[in-house]
Amino acid sequence: MQKGRVLTALRRHDPIVTLTTDFGLRDPFVASMKAVILSIERRARLVDLSHELPPHRVLPAALFLREACPWFPAGTIHVAVVDPGVGGPRRPLVAKAGGQLYVGPDNGIFSLVFQRALFEGAWQISDPKYLLPKISRTFHGRDLFAPAAAHLARGLPPNVFGPEIVDPTTLEIPGPTVCPDRLAGEVLWVDRFGNCATNLEEDQVSRWAAGEPFTIRAASRKIRGMSESYASVPVGGLLAIFNSSGVLEIACNRASAHEALGLKEGDPVVLERIRNPRSKGKS
Amino acid sequence: MQKGRVLTALRRHDPIVTLTTDFGLRDPFVASMKAVILSIERRARLVDLSHELPPHRVLPAALFLREACPWFPAGTIHVAVVDPGVGGPRRPLVAKAGGQLYVGPDNGIFSLVFQRALFEGAWQISDPKYLLPKISRTFHGRDLFAPAAAHLARGLPPNVFGPEIVDPTTLEIPGPTVCPDRLAGEVLWVDRFGNCATNLEEDQVSRWAAGEPFTIRAASRKIRGMSESYASVPVGGLLAIFNSSGVLEIACNRASAHEALGLKEGDPVVLERIRNPRSKGKS
Amino acid sequence: MQKGRVLTALRRHDPIVTLTTDFGLRDPFVASMKAVILSIERRARLVDLSHELPPHRVLPAALFLREACPWFPAGTIHVAVVDPGVGGPRRPLVAKAGGQLYVGPDNGIFSLVFQRALFEGAWQISDPKYLLPKISRTFHGRDLFAPAAAHLARGLPPNVFGPEIVDPTTLEIPGPTVCPDRLAGEVLWVDRFGNCATNLEEDQVSRWAAGEPFTIRAASRKIRGMSESYASVPVGGLLAIFNSSGVLEIACNRASAHEALGLKEGDPVVLERIRNPRSKGKS
Repeated sequence: MQKGRVLTALRRHDPIVTLTTDFGLRDPFVASMKAVILSIERRARLVDLSHELPPHRVLPAALFLREACPWFPAGTIHVAVVDPGVGGPRRPLVAKAGGQLYVGPDNGIFSLVFQRALFEGAWQISDPKYLLPKISRTFHGRDLFAPAAAHLARGLPPNVFGPEIVDPTTLEIPGPTVCPDRLAGEVLWVDRFGNCATNLEEDQVSRWAAGEPFTIRAASRKIRGMSESYASVPVGGLLAIFNSSGVLEIACNRASAHEALGLKEGDPVVLERIRNPRSKGKS
Repeated sequence: MQKGRVLTALRRHDPIVTLTTDFGLRDPFVASMKAVILSIERRARLVDLSHELPPHRVLPAALFLREACPWFPAGTIHVAVVDPGVGGPRRPLVAKAGGQLYVGPDNGIFSLVFQRALFEGAWQISDPKYLLPKISRTFHGRDLFAPAAAHLARGLPPNVFGPEIVDPTTLEIPGPTVCPDRLAGEVLWVDRFGNCATNLEEDQVSRWAAGEPFTIRAASRKIRGMSESYASVPVGGLLAIFNSSGVLEIACNRASAHEALGLKEGDPVVLERIRNPRSKGKS
Repeated sequence: MQKGRVLTALRRHDPIVTLTTDFGLRDPFVASMKAVILSIERRARLVDLSHELPPHRVLPAALFLREACPWFPAGTIHVAVVDPGVGGPRRPLVAKAGGQLYVGPDNGIFSLVFQRALFEGAWQISDPKYLLPKISRTFHGRDLFAPAAAHLARGLPPNVFGPEIVDPTTLEIPGPTVCPDRLAGEVLWVDRFGNCATNLEEDQVSRWAAGEPFTIRAASRKIRGMSESYASVPVGGLLAIFNSSGVLEIACNRASAHEALGLKEGDPVVLERIRNPRSKGKS
C-alpha cells in the first residue's frame, strides 16, 4: 500500500447505511439484512431508523422517510423495506435524490422524499451480479435490497444495477380543502405521545389566515388559535401548535390528544375564521 | 508509531460484535453491556440483532441465531444472552464455529448454529482476568459475557478463557413424521406478520412429494399446493409457501395467518397426497 | 496531509455518542436526531441505549442513566431527551462528570449520575452557532441537543456553549425508613422480567441486619432471607436477592414477581428482624 492510498483511505468516510422496515425486532429479518450488508461491505455504518413501522402500509413509511432522510449527510444510503408486494410484479429500485441514495421496492415508499429533494434518477435492480445467488420468494430485504445497498456503500454508482426507471411509483397525500372562511385538513400521523399531526402546513395556514384570528375544530372540540409551546396550557390541556415538521398538530400538554379526544388518522381538522361580532352589523 | 503499524491499523477492520438478548430496551441491561464492551474495546462495532426475544425461552433464541448468524462475515463475534439459569450451575461459554465466534450461556442457545456450521470448539469462561472484577448474581451479560466478547474483539483467541467444553448443551427441535401418504410437521415460529413457519424443509418436502400433488392441512383448513409468492392469492387469502429460511410457511397475503386461523407455535401442519380419482378404480 | 496528522487521525478514536429517549421508534424523532449528529460529525459512533423509557417521566430516565452511564469509557457523550417541558422555561444543558459528557434538558435527568460521578460543571446551551438555524417549538432533541452533542463529538469543550449553570436541577429518590427492628423501603423499578428492584442498597441492609436473620415483606408475602441466585428456589418460587445494581430485588425464578404478587413501583418492601423464640423468654 502506497502513501497515497493510505491518505485516501483515511480521508474516505465509512459509508452510512440506514435501515427502515416494518419487520419488528422479534424475528431474524433485520439481523439477516445487517449481516448481508456487512458481509459485502464491512465498513458500512449501520444506522437503525425504525423497524416498528405499521406492517404492510406504505404511506406511513413514506411519511416517516420524508421526515427523517433530509437531515442525513450527502452520500447516505437509505434502505427501506415495507414491501407487501414482495415476489409480485413491483420493481426493486435504487435511486438518487438530493445527493443521497435510496434502495427499496418501487411502491412509492420514497416518493414523498423525491417530491422535496432534487430527484436525480432511479434504476431497476436486476443485474444478478449484485444480488445474493438465490433470491427467496418472501424476503427481498435480505436477498436483493441489502446486497444492492452494500454495493452502493462500496462505491458503485446507482446506474449499474439495471435499466433506468422513468416512472417511479408515486403516492398521493390527501390535501386540505381551502375556502375563504374555512381550511379543512385531516390527521396524517399520530405519534407515540398521542400528538396528532395534520396535512395543514404552516405556510399555507398563514397565507389563508392572513393575520386574522381563527379556531381549530377537531373531534367536536374547538381550540382558539395556535400555541407557542406545549407548556403554554395547563397539564392535560388541549392545544394546536406548529410542530417540528412545520405542520399544524393537535396535542395535549404532557398527555395524549389521541386518547383524550379519540382523534385518529384520517379524522378532519378544520380551521374557521372568527367572525368579529362588532363587524357583524356592518354587513 | 512506525509506518508498518500505520498500515496494519488501516488494514485491520474494526471488530463486529452483535448483541441478541431477551432483555427488552426499557431496562438498562443492554446499555450496560454495550458500555462494558466499549470500555474494553472502543473500536467494537456494535450491531443489535434483537432484544425482543421471548423472555426466558432458549429455543426461540436458538432458532433466531441459526437464521441470522450464518450471513455474517468471518470473525464476527456474537453475544447472545437468554439466560434463565444465570447464577446456577450452567457454564458460561465462548465457542468458534464456521469462522465466527460465539459468547453466551451453555444452555443450547448456539447449538442449532453449531449443527449447521463447522464447529471448531468451545471453552468455559473462567479466567477472572477477562471478567469484571465483581460478578453479580443476576447479570452475567454485563459482568461476564460482555467483557469476554470485548477481549475476543481485541484479538484474544477463544481458548484462553478457560478449559475446553467437550459436551456443549444441545437442543432438540421436533422433527416431522414421514409416512408414504402423509408428512406431518408443526409450526416452529410465528413471525411479526403472523406468518407461521414450520419444521418442514423444502428439500424434505420435495423428496416426499416426488413431483406428485399434495394438500396442506393447518388448523382445519386445507390448502392446495405451494404458492410462488404471497401476491399469488387475493389479499387476505391463505397460502403455503417455501419461505426465506427454506421451510414451508402458512401465510395470508397482506394479513396474519396466525390471527385468521388461530394457528400458533406447536400446532400441526400436515401434508397429504391428493389421490387421483381416475386411478381410484384401478386398485 | 502530513504524516503527523495521519498518525493523529489514526490514534484518535471515533467519538461515542449514546442516545436515550422516551421517543419510541415508530416516529421519525430518533432517526432525525441521528441524522443531525451524523451531518455535523460523520465519525460519531451512535449507540442506542433506550428509546422505550416511559413517556414524559423524568425519574425513570434518571434511574436508567445512573445505572448505564458509569460503565462507558471516558469521553463518551450521552444525549438524553425525556423532555415534557420542551419549549417552556427549562434550560438546555451540557455537563461534564466523571470524564464523560452529558447533553439534555436541565430537568434532573442526569442528576442521579452527577450524585455518583465527579461532577465537573454544567453549561447552558445558548450560542446559536452550535444549534440548527431554526429551533422548533416541540423538538429540541433534533434542533438543539443533537447538534450540541455533535459539536462535543468534534472536540469542542462543554464550556463554549453558553453560561455556566451553577444550580442544575436535582431529583429526589425516596429513601428507606430505618428503625432498629425494621427497614422499610419501596419498589423503584420493575424490569421487563417482572423483577422489582427497591431503594434498599446492599451496604445499608448489611449494616442494619448486622449479621442477624430477617424476613422481607412485599405485597403481603413474607420471604425468609436473601437468595444467592434465581435458581436457588424452584421455578416460579419467590425470592429476594441483591441484584446487579447492588439493591434488594423481589423476584420469581423464571417468572414475574410483578405479575405473581401484583407488586409495582412505589409499593413498600419491608425488612423485619426475626425474633429468636428462645431469646423471647429472656426479656
